[in-house]
Amino acid sequence: MIFWQEGGVCAPKGFKANGVHCGIRKNKSKKDLALIVSQVPAAAAAVYTTNLVKGAPILVTQENLSNGTAQAMVCNSGNANTCNANGVEIAQGMCRLVEETTGISASDVIVASTGVIGQPLSLEPIASGMPSLAQGLHDHGSREAAYAIMTTDTILKEAALSFQIGGVTCSIGGICKGSGMIHPNMATMLAFLTTDAAVSPSLLQKALKETVNETFNMISVDGDTSTNDMVSMMANGMSGAPAIETDGTPEYKTFVTALKYVCTALSRDIAKDGEGATRLIKCTVTGAASAADAQKAARSVASSTLLKAAVFGADANWGRVLCALGYSGASLDPHKVDVTFGSLAGSVQVCKNGSGLDFSEETAKEILLADEIAIEITLHDGAASATAWGCDLTYDYVHINGDYRS
Amino acid sequence: MIFWQEGGVCAPKGFKANGVHCGIRKNKSKKDLALIVSQVPAAAAAVYTTNLVKGAPILVTQENLSNGTAQAMVCNSGNANTCNANGVEIAQGMCRLVEETTGISASDVIVASTGVIGQPLSLEPIASGMPSLAQGLHDHGSREAAYAIMTTDTILKEAALSFQIGGVTCSIGGICKGSGMIHPNMATMLAFLTTDAAVSPSLLQKALKETVNETFNMISVDGDTSTNDMVSMMANGMSGAPAIETDGTPEYKTFVTALKYVCTALSRDIAKDGEGATRLIKCTVTGAASAADAQKAARSVASSTLLKAAVFGADANWGRVLCALGYSGASLDPHKVDVTFGSLAGSVQVCKNGSGLDFSEETAKEILLADEIAIEITLHDGAASATAWGCDLTYDYVHINGDYRS
Repeated sequence: MIFWQEGGVCAPKGFKANGVHCGIRKNKSKKDLALIVSQVPAAAAAVYTTNLVKGAPILVTQENLSNGTAQAMVCNSGNANTCNANGVEIAQGMCRLVEETTGISASDVIVASTGVIGQPLSLEPIASGMPSLAQGLHDHGSREAAYAIMTTDTILKEAALSFQIGGVTCSIGGICKGSGMIHPNMATMLAFLTTDAAVSPSLLQKALKETVNETFNMISVDGDTSTNDMVSMMANGMSGAPAIETDGTPEYKTFVTALKYVCTALSRDIAKDGEGATRLIKCTVTGAASAADAQKAARSVASSTLLKAAVFGADANWGRVLCALGYSGASLDPHKVDVTFGSLAGSVQVCKNGSGLDFSEETAKEILLADEIAIEITLHDGAASATAWGCDLTYDYVHINGDYRS
Repeated sequence: MIFWQEGGVCAPKGFKANGVHCGIRKNKSKKDLALIVSQVPAAAAAVYTTNLVKGAPILVTQENLSNGTAQAMVCNSGNANTCNANGVEIAQGMCRLVEETTGISASDVIVASTGVIGQPLSLEPIASGMPSLAQGLHDHGSREAAYAIMTTDTILKEAALSFQIGGVTCSIGGICKGSGMIHPNMATMLAFLTTDAAVSPSLLQKALKETVNETFNMISVDGDTSTNDMVSMMANGMSGAPAIETDGTPEYKTFVTALKYVCTALSRDIAKDGEGATRLIKCTVTGAASAADAQKAARSVASSTLLKAAVFGADANWGRVLCALGYSGASLDPHKVDVTFGSLAGSVQVCKNGSGLDFSEETAKEILLADEIAIEITLHDGAASATAWGCDLTYDYVHINGDYRS
């Protein structure tokens, strides 16, 4: 049994978190530095952006996680610490500041930065904010941390749930941020996950990678794969549940199922909070020849600029769905494609066997005026399926990104 | 010597054109049917969209061009005749109507449609408009034809030039349309080219494909590859110039150079007239390891949603250039990348060896407020280069596409 619970990254036993304003941002009311620590060293795993231009914190985290262990996650917003000549030095400095204030070894720190690319990041505000950040760590600090990592996000994103391993209750918690520059490829925007289940580092890495491919990697806001994407996770075993050490066991499967629930909830929140977005687009492809085909097709539709603009206008322009399927790279026969638009207001099939059906534009408009739009596509080509999440393209997206650095 | 000239597709000897309003569109003041004919059968070539969902006219044109000969091009706007159960029948019907009114064999007709996908197209307005369309064909009809194929285009797009083959003056002319759903892949939006040079069909195909890869395939408005992209060309030999029959000869090279001039001018016009666009973005990549790397890199930057929004805001957010290079798939070393922004107002280098330079934001703003922005990227990795064209992302793009079908 899986139960949603409160508490975010602090829901699992032995994790504390906090967030403060340290001064990277000029706006004093916006927190800009987050810290999450485990009471004991934890198995750790992460997946990273595939962008060739990688933020300096990514490089430092990769090095720190090479032994599969971590005990803290530190993250600032307001500056991505990317494309700066001294970026690695600064990211290492952030880890050292965590060591100085918490006693956790600098090499056991997962470090991340998010914000503008290419502006030097000074250690000064971080050094001045770190003592109060560390002193304020507490069992219910997940929201503070989640708030501190937000950039253009308008919704605070956290999730947690509990499940059973060997009769013992374990939890997984997570926070994430992401709103623009969202088109993850093998990794995604920043997400920090915690669990008190006991999982070996290699198995944790496997579970995380598998989950990310079906969740964070299936969202898109604007087709731009960020330089700083990272999903990281610590498993500290403090639930006391039996260790999960073998792939394919019922315990492993339970763990992965729970992890997918948390990551799906967080991914969906990122898509829904896409920059300027007014509507969530959930695109489900069924009947695909393979999982890869289903994923390519679903993601292509959810990412189509033209479809996103049509959803903003609540215009049932399903030809754009067919168009995006056609250039998705997925194997499919256009003459077998069915498409249905749906929402809480109802559903309407608009295309059968690749050709248009007569439908009421009025009904379609009502359906598309809802907050969450489902686009259901059947390829009649096999048994594989996939879901992708996106959002509409609005005037506000253009507004937000026309002058992001000011 | 190459000289620009007036006349569009009618600049070469032996071509006539016309455009009329036949009633596919409700707005009677907008022409919606175009016809271009050659006095004699011409060598013909075309490149098509790689979208798996192909408009019915594409399929019929492919069949008609299988013998390398054509004598007419017919195109309607207002309806793409795509994803309709009877699409092929309708496209064939359009060719038959050309035969009935001009005497040109239906199998020698290049047929195209552009507009909304998935709405049935009736032959009735086309049948009623065809007689006046054919009767009105004239030597200076290129503009009428160019106007009739426009959809959301705001600029009429035509170009023509003259050059010498064996001491004889030849011309190449072209018209095209395209404003949204622009991210050509192996082919592009609709372009119709004519020449009175004598070129064999196979060599014409080679020249066209090579040219399209460097021109129409290097533009992007919104990342959506259309279902109806096609660039087609007729060479009727009526200049009297010696036939170009061998690859690599000076005559062939002259012909390809002239063709690239025309296609570059038309491509640039499409990017500049991108839906809602206020600024043309010209992105040049030099110092790449290979031509493919240069093309991938240039196109990725010119297509980046985030960069396009920054250009709209005249914001020198060069981190987005680095980000788009990083996910472009091109081989490059981020630590060797230089970036300069330029326009008629001046130029400013913003990034050297992958890190930011100090620059005046005020100067950068002035530069980016111009109509045409040059982004110059040097990879210091080799000798290959490429140019891609795009446009800014504006409120009007969202407005135009939020309710395109109304």
